[in-house]
Amino acid sequence: MLIVMNHSASQSDVDAVSEIVREMGFRAEPIPGSERTAIGVLGNHGYVDDTKILDLPGVQRVIHVSKPYKLVSRDFHPENTIVDVAGIKVGQGCRPVVVGGPCAVESEEQIIKTALFVRKCGGDMLRGGAFKPRTGPHCFQGLREEGLKLLAKAGKESGLPIVTEVMSPDNVGLVAEYADLLQVGARNMQNFDLLRELGKIRKPVLLKRGMSATVEEFLAAAEYILAEGNEQVILCERGIRTYETATRNTLDLSVVPLIKEMSHLPIMVDPSHATGKRSLVSPMAKAALVSGADGVLVEVHPEPEKALSDGPQSLTFPGFEQLMCEIKQLTKFLGYC
Amino acid sequence: MLIVMNHSASQSDVDAVSEIVREMGFRAEPIPGSERTAIGVLGNHGYVDDTKILDLPGVQRVIHVSKPYKLVSRDFHPENTIVDVAGIKVGQGCRPVVVGGPCAVESEEQIIKTALFVRKCGGDMLRGGAFKPRTGPHCFQGLREEGLKLLAKAGKESGLPIVTEVMSPDNVGLVAEYADLLQVGARNMQNFDLLRELGKIRKPVLLKRGMSATVEEFLAAAEYILAEGNEQVILCERGIRTYETATRNTLDLSVVPLIKEMSHLPIMVDPSHATGKRSLVSPMAKAALVSGADGVLVEVHPEPEKALSDGPQSLTFPGFEQLMCEIKQLTKFLGYC
Amino acid sequence: MLIVMNHSASQSDVDAVSEIVREMGFRAEPIPGSERTAIGVLGNHGYVDDTKILDLPGVQRVIHVSKPYKLVSRDFHPENTIVDVAGIKVGQGCRPVVVGGPCAVESEEQIIKTALFVRKCGGDMLRGGAFKPRTGPHCFQGLREEGLKLLAKAGKESGLPIVTEVMSPDNVGLVAEYADLLQVGARNMQNFDLLRELGKIRKPVLLKRGMSATVEEFLAAAEYILAEGNEQVILCERGIRTYETATRNTLDLSVVPLIKEMSHLPIMVDPSHATGKRSLVSPMAKAALVSGADGVLVEVHPEPEKALSDGPQSLTFPGFEQLMCEIKQLTKFLGYC
Amino acid sequence: MLIVMNHSASQSDVDAVSEIVREMGFRAEPIPGSERTAIGVLGNHGYVDDTKILDLPGVQRVIHVSKPYKLVSRDFHPENTIVDVAGIKVGQGCRPVVVGGPCAVESEEQIIKTALFVRKCGGDMLRGGAFKPRTGPHCFQGLREEGLKLLAKAGKESGLPIVTEVMSPDNVGLVAEYADLLQVGARNMQNFDLLRELGKIRKPVLLKRGMSATVEEFLAAAEYILAEGNEQVILCERGIRTYETATRNTLDLSVVPLIKEMSHLPIMVDPSHATGKRSLVSPMAKAALVSGADGVLVEVHPEPEKALSDGPQSLTFPGFEQLMCEIKQLTKFLGYC
Repeated sequence: MLIVMNHSASQSDVDAVSEIVREMGFRAEPIPGSERTAIGVLGNHGYVDDTKILDLPGVQRVIHVSKPYKLVSRDFHPENTIVDVAGIKVGQGCRPVVVGGPCAVESEEQIIKTALFVRKCGGDMLRGGAFKPRTGPHCFQGLREEGLKLLAKAGKESGLPIVTEVMSPDNVGLVAEYADLLQVGARNMQNFDLLRELGKIRKPVLLKRGMSATVEEFLAAAEYILAEGNEQVILCERGIRTYETATRNTLDLSVVPLIKEMSHLPIMVDPSHATGKRSLVSPMAKAALVSGADGVLVEVHPEPEKALSDGPQSLTFPGFEQLMCEIKQLTKFLGYC
Repeated sequence: MLIVMNHSASQSDVDAVSEIVREMGFRAEPIPGSERTAIGVLGNHGYVDDTKILDLPGVQRVIHVSKPYKLVSRDFHPENTIVDVAGIKVGQGCRPVVVGGPCAVESEEQIIKTALFVRKCGGDMLRGGAFKPRTGPHCFQGLREEGLKLLAKAGKESGLPIVTEVMSPDNVGLVAEYADLLQVGARNMQNFDLLRELGKIRKPVLLKRGMSATVEEFLAAAEYILAEGNEQVILCERGIRTYETATRNTLDLSVVPLIKEMSHLPIMVDPSHATGKRSLVSPMAKAALVSGADGVLVEVHPEPEKALSDGPQSLTFPGFEQLMCEIKQLTKFLGYC
Repeated sequence: MLIVMNHSASQSDVDAVSEIVREMGFRAEPIPGSERTAIGVLGNHGYVDDTKILDLPGVQRVIHVSKPYKLVSRDFHPENTIVDVAGIKVGQGCRPVVVGGPCAVESEEQIIKTALFVRKCGGDMLRGGAFKPRTGPHCFQGLREEGLKLLAKAGKESGLPIVTEVMSPDNVGLVAEYADLLQVGARNMQNFDLLRELGKIRKPVLLKRGMSATVEEFLAAAEYILAEGNEQVILCERGIRTYETATRNTLDLSVVPLIKEMSHLPIMVDPSHATGKRSLVSPMAKAALVSGADGVLVEVHPEPEKALSDGPQSLTFPGFEQLMCEIKQLTKFLGYC
Repeated sequence: MLIVMNHSASQSDVDAVSEIVREMGFRAEPIPGSERTAIGVLGNHGYVDDTKILDLPGVQRVIHVSKPYKLVSRDFHPENTIVDVAGIKVGQGCRPVVVGGPCAVESEEQIIKTALFVRKCGGDMLRGGAFKPRTGPHCFQGLREEGLKLLAKAGKESGLPIVTEVMSPDNVGLVAEYADLLQVGARNMQNFDLLRELGKIRKPVLLKRGMSATVEEFLAAAEYILAEGNEQVILCERGIRTYETATRNTLDLSVVPLIKEMSHLPIMVDPSHATGKRSLVSPMAKAALVSGADGVLVEVHPEPEKALSDGPQSLTFPGFEQLMCEIKQLTKFLGYC
């Protein structure tokens, strides 16, 4: 940690800050500059809370060298983590996976038909929402436990592992009974009670990036899960909120190679929620794989125009089949057989 | 709702869309233009889910005239709502209130000392966090139930109503036993299970705006609470996330008069979290009141340099006393006695 | 255009608005709804200035169906535009191009060495800044005309067309003497005098997206150039400013397929400025090509650690060679020989 | 400057970095920590270009302690700058000023009528655009020199100093003949040729914050003007671009007290462009003054519903009169007589 003093800070200000640093159990190393003094803080193991210091007279700002996460950091854990979802391996070096399915489970026919089609095209997992977070209370909120049962049935019939969202700590047990991969939605990325609960289970977790989460906050959220003992976490970029409204969100694809540098966890991309527009899903799914993503989540629906949510971003069956065909060629080109 | 067709959409595209609209139970009124056709949708009561339509051939986009909220809208409820917090009235026409207190409850001495000081200076309510959402798992997370008990004690000794955050649906009952006003933090603005639970209780709720929530999403979140039957909701602007990092968040003060036009609910402002910097708190607290806010939440701590969280944005006791003195003059100037 | 009235607007408000619309020379078609009335405006050719209407009593908002651009729109010009840069074709259906070179021209040796290397690796054009916009006045501002001469020399020796930035209307003539493709930087995307001047020349223009420009503003800026008679415009996505600071900007790659739908103009991508980090340039360059970009601009420098600007985002020679090799395989995979 | 090394950087990496720092003429002071080493750079006068360093093996990031501006900084120039606009003083300690007028000069009658009204209500200066930057080329672009002449006439008849925008370096001389205060619009905040030209004249400049400019970039832009010798610069906050579209821009009012700490230059606020909505202008104008702004710019038009641009955000004459009355009381309350 580095403490930057004001241009006009006095020597006694510097001394007072150094004294507090020592009281906190660290060493203080003043570095006089031509314009101002800075004070290096040495001997800390990990992130130091800076609130006591920022307040002292003469302090301009505090610069952190350590980060608020450690378990998820590649710096301290150089080998790649491979997550195992009911036998499907996800992570650096493995063939990228495709998770397909509707935004929401709507009926037995819809989910089973989709599952079989995803399987037939070569998809790796089935997604579908049973608990749906919706902006307003007057919209369809999901079939809840009934949806989980239908999902499980579709998973069984197709042989695909299933991925579904869990929205509150209470429901972790219930969802974990049915799902092979438990998804935390963007709105819940900092629902810390939920994260802690997921840290205690023995099933893998798919953590979506919050709508306005920085990469650092994203990794710190994953740290909550790892800190409780569950290391089977897949990160997922799904677009961030920016001033641009031409797409539903702004897909921040550069974080894929960046997060691979910063962390050992796998990262997937959801081009459906990111763009919100069917015609953009395939180009961005392929771009994601080329940028190094360990997989993609793609919405597909037998009749998107009748979908109860997110129809406009769902691929049709022929669209999904076409994308799967292109992905197969692309992953082959990228060196996976 | 208005459906805008592509320049190149055919008459049969227009007919097909009109047909679907009619199947949904509405009237369709094509409006041919010189460049393209639009189709007016008539007869809907409230927001219409547009997913079935966006997908049809020839459709460019759908424009909503109705909003995803109604109960919170001034359009449908022109009179101001006055929220009663243990006898303190909050809302348009009432004297603006000041809620003071530390970010987190840390000890009995700290919270009682602060409560008595807030009371002495003329503050209206006591705030303090018992359950603390923190970015990383390795930071202080609050005293939890023990913190609630200390808060209640401080409330009793000072005679001030208490305001504290509730982070999960499970804890609503527990927090409601102690708090006079239950706060939903920015990270939980779209924790819909929590909102629904708060809609079922008989205590008022302070709903903070999410870090990247639009005004529309903010009001739709409040709608969740009202839809369950609890109309005692106070909104709170606390800064939004933007590209600017010179302040902790960007205080979006213009939404104060804007939300007063759009909704009948009271709105308060939290200049401490918005700016993150002690020296900016007083100017922005006063600016908030002049812009029409029904109150402000201000962090104050006996020893900010020793605070376990958010010290740099907490006022000292002398700073709070000075602000309260200025606020008294200002509210008098604004016509409240 | 659609005019949405307030819930409480009276019939005489509707009549008054309709009257003004007619005075503007259009037809007004009231569409009464169950909650509020909307008024369709018919007969307009292109974008209508809404300022006279927004102000009338009872008007809630105005929704534009037409856009502030037309010449750049695919709706009115379905065939792809192919831009010819000294014989190199850029646009949909052509082999994607690679523009390589340093951020700034620094010396004869540096630029010639780079030009020859770019050529040797198979690059299509040479980039290099002679006029440099820099945040502060105390930084290196470019070699100016001397830089143009060195660029021209390097272009001649390598046989590569050259691309360089023009910063003010005065300099358009000068830069056009040397450059084959004139670049408008992000900071000047809305320097309308500059755009108009570029519309009058007979050389192609590379228009970079402004740091916080929407897709609509981006296309409207291009419209300024086309409106003056120059249709040889290449758009360039170079990252937008968002709350995320882990990368220099946020590369908004989804706009590549989106702009291809909205406009007939070619679009390139600059992954160097977008990410600001060398290790992210290659993954994002390849992702850009897969998403459909007509080319990429990549910074390369013989000694990035000695570069006078943007060293950290410049590829080294071996890095550029490696990328070119991968791009060749990728474009072959994408169907270009 | 502080150079942070990777966790895994070797001693020879640290030595190599230190060596380069010494070659640049500074001292290098390694600060070994428990997790990683940092290297303090001493002896620099002002901002150091970090590109040579960021590239070296083992370097994680570089942290700047100095800023890219100095002349505008309060650290180096503690006394407030008072700007004199034809006899009207603007700056800390002076009575806040009100600049009123239409967005654009449209006709002699319009501008003179407005000027006389602004004067009658107690306004201090007259604003009006002669050169108008507009998103699309098909909109009204201003009366240009004819507009300047009408402005000058209105200034003469009303006795008010005039404020108008200059859009390109060529026009600085022309505009300076007529204007008392030359405005740089948000789109041109980083038009460095224009800034340099304005640094050479002897008239004051009103510099508007760019749509997505950080406070640091804003001050660095002002530095361009001061660096050329013109110290008469007034800064102006006019809203920034964020994800929120309920207002035209997001008024970032917290920067008023913040910039007062960082710089000695005066700062004004433009609530008309910031909010884009007439009903929000007065509350935000008053909030700006309470937050410490040295003045406000307010759009007023005799017939806003007929304005050629920005009608919806222009006050009517009665609205302006009412605001001026409230501002007079408020400035009196704030201690100015």
